[in-house]
Amino acid sequence: MDYDSLFSADTASFMRSPVREIFKRVDLSKIYSFAGGYPSPDAFDLEGVKQSALQVIDRYGSKALQYNATQGIPELRQALSERYGVPLERVQVTTSSQQGIDVCTRVMVDPGDVVLTSNPSYLGALQSFRSYRAHIVGVPHSNDDGEFRARYEQAIDQCKRQGRKVKFLYMIPDFQNPSGETLPLSQRRLLVELAREHGFVIVEDSPYRELRYRGHDVPTIYSLDPDCVLHLGSFSKILAPGLRLGWILGNPQLLDQIYVCKQSLDLCAPVLDQYIATQFVTSGRLDANIEKIKGLYSRRCQGMQELLARYMPQGVTWTRPDGGLFLFLTMPQGFDAVKFYDRALDNGVAYVAGSFFHPDGSGLNTMRLNFSFMDLERIDKGLQLLARLIGEELDALGLRCDAGQ
Amino acid sequence: MDYDSLFSADTASFMRSPVREIFKRVDLSKIYSFAGGYPSPDAFDLEGVKQSALQVIDRYGSKALQYNATQGIPELRQALSERYGVPLERVQVTTSSQQGIDVCTRVMVDPGDVVLTSNPSYLGALQSFRSYRAHIVGVPHSNDDGEFRARYEQAIDQCKRQGRKVKFLYMIPDFQNPSGETLPLSQRRLLVELAREHGFVIVEDSPYRELRYRGHDVPTIYSLDPDCVLHLGSFSKILAPGLRLGWILGNPQLLDQIYVCKQSLDLCAPVLDQYIATQFVTSGRLDANIEKIKGLYSRRCQGMQELLARYMPQGVTWTRPDGGLFLFLTMPQGFDAVKFYDRALDNGVAYVAGSFFHPDGSGLNTMRLNFSFMDLERIDKGLQLLARLIGEELDALGLRCDAGQ
Repeated sequence: MDYDSLFSADTASFMRSPVREIFKRVDLSKIYSFAGGYPSPDAFDLEGVKQSALQVIDRYGSKALQYNATQGIPELRQALSERYGVPLERVQVTTSSQQGIDVCTRVMVDPGDVVLTSNPSYLGALQSFRSYRAHIVGVPHSNDDGEFRARYEQAIDQCKRQGRKVKFLYMIPDFQNPSGETLPLSQRRLLVELAREHGFVIVEDSPYRELRYRGHDVPTIYSLDPDCVLHLGSFSKILAPGLRLGWILGNPQLLDQIYVCKQSLDLCAPVLDQYIATQFVTSGRLDANIEKIKGLYSRRCQGMQELLARYMPQGVTWTRPDGGLFLFLTMPQGFDAVKFYDRALDNGVAYVAGSFFHPDGSGLNTMRLNFSFMDLERIDKGLQLLARLIGEELDALGLRCDAGQ
Repeated sequence: MDYDSLFSADTASFMRSPVREIFKRVDLSKIYSFAGGYPSPDAFDLEGVKQSALQVIDRYGSKALQYNATQGIPELRQALSERYGVPLERVQVTTSSQQGIDVCTRVMVDPGDVVLTSNPSYLGALQSFRSYRAHIVGVPHSNDDGEFRARYEQAIDQCKRQGRKVKFLYMIPDFQNPSGETLPLSQRRLLVELAREHGFVIVEDSPYRELRYRGHDVPTIYSLDPDCVLHLGSFSKILAPGLRLGWILGNPQLLDQIYVCKQSLDLCAPVLDQYIATQFVTSGRLDANIEKIKGLYSRRCQGMQELLARYMPQGVTWTRPDGGLFLFLTMPQGFDAVKFYDRALDNGVAYVAGSFFHPDGSGLNTMRLNFSFMDLERIDKGLQLLARLIGEELDALGLRCDAGQ
């Protein structure tokens, strides 16, 4: 049978996740993996999930296993509404925040429509945008507010000249994936101004926000203008990714389209999982778990910085995140992290090449490193190995800055 | 903000589920509901789910809460592979079989492409097809094999003349939703012949197959030709819909596109739920539960037939299913089940109007009645009420056949 003639036009733009492909190739437990965005196995409150499962089945009985509302079970929506100080009609539960990204794209993007992103940006989001044949425009960051605004304005103007409609801007303002960096308040305000001025929505993806290890919270973009922002939240990094639960906060008119779309996507999010998550939120277990996780990851984040400084060859630089799960490594120009990847994996260490996060395919000399999954001992050994391999590669390429080392 | 200008072209074809809208309007426990496809609250093995949750968390620890493979956790795929006698590489786990329908449509259908269905067919599938702007062609059933084949051939020829490509045929061969009827083997064979001849796929949706109350199993369409059929299965009716778990069996080349698509939809299906479901399959609990459910629903199905015969006015007919959750009621021509609906609901009884299941909007004089959700006592009272209201409506319309009653 000729299947190829049956596939939709969208499929030609489907992109395999290099992260998920890595996990098909190797057993994570047998290598040093800086690759995934996996929480630490120690980050899960196993006993709490167990107790919560028992409690919700005893308390809700068959309701815990039955179909429920497409918007999410009322109990969880109420809990999220209270936790984040948002009216109930502005809360939609999603089956993972990846679904949040997907459904936002689905209800807004026609082929050729523009999605603005930072450059680099989250791979899974780029995958989703591509799968709907969005025209993705990645805008490089600038620390200078004037330059920052100018870059976005330039990108928007260019799209307009091409007759393309900007549908939304996708942003992870807190401890960005992959860079680990946080957008200052002034730049969040600028983005809202631009959205208002040019009539597009901001999709604020915020899975790491509650994992801050130092410094102070910056207001969410959503809080600056709840009617031009769809705010995506997730239980994956603060409770457990295995529950596949996230949420969208936003204007009811936008959420209504998302709600109707979600009916045909999966009817409703996993119900038992929603009750378990509700139990976590309302019992205080979630806050306790977040505190535990912050302690754990904070040490790994700090330790990683120190180990990078100790092991990495000169000329290699990295970001210094205040939270989240990732930092971003930059090698000298000429280094190719995609090509280098097989050598690293053969030697037992994995990362994600930075170019996969760049919509324009740039950033060949960069890589994303995760610091949440492994303990510090393994981070230490893994980084020693990775640094040695990078050094050898730089030597082979004649790119080493510190010839004396 | 002008949101309307931001919505994708697909959204204009989104269709609200009348079933889900009913559930927004009324409290199910306060009315006689023949509307949903809800399992009976008594159909859930609450103790089994509780024990399984404990066991899998104890046994798998953090793995039960972590991310896992997009194809599904290996343990569940293995269990499904063995249960249904299908090679492992032909098993893809989905986050509900509604997702199975959605993802099959997404990887195959461009706007204007044809999806063939029976007429009537499952509402949630029609919603999904419409949301991708498929050209849905509903083919009325015939018990005569020659006529059955002729109708499908005629539909296919007409699509070809219109320059439209038939991408797949969607079929619920066992205890169909909404009719409750089962496709005989000869007609399953005919469909496979047509698919081969005209180069399209058959999406065989099979959520009720294991709930047979009398007669003998008919081979699945998948078993007749595993390379031209995508077989969708579900735990919703045999274990619990709240787990949101289904599966697709099919040719690995087709599954590969679905796998890549699913990466950007939600990364993976709920993991704890997958472990719980695995535990159910491998421990024998699932088979025990199916036996229990069959006993329960079989009595309701049979009882419903008897009560319909007792209460319904002459001129009202219904299907006699051998399994599943539904039967289909036909009133005399001229009866409008959509218009009648408000009156029924105001009087405390709910159903789904049959026209919603007809892609061409026909079937105004039909309704779908569910017999799994309520116990026989409530079915009795609800049917008495419904029959009285239908009788009054027939009187008002001058459509009653049995004037003497």
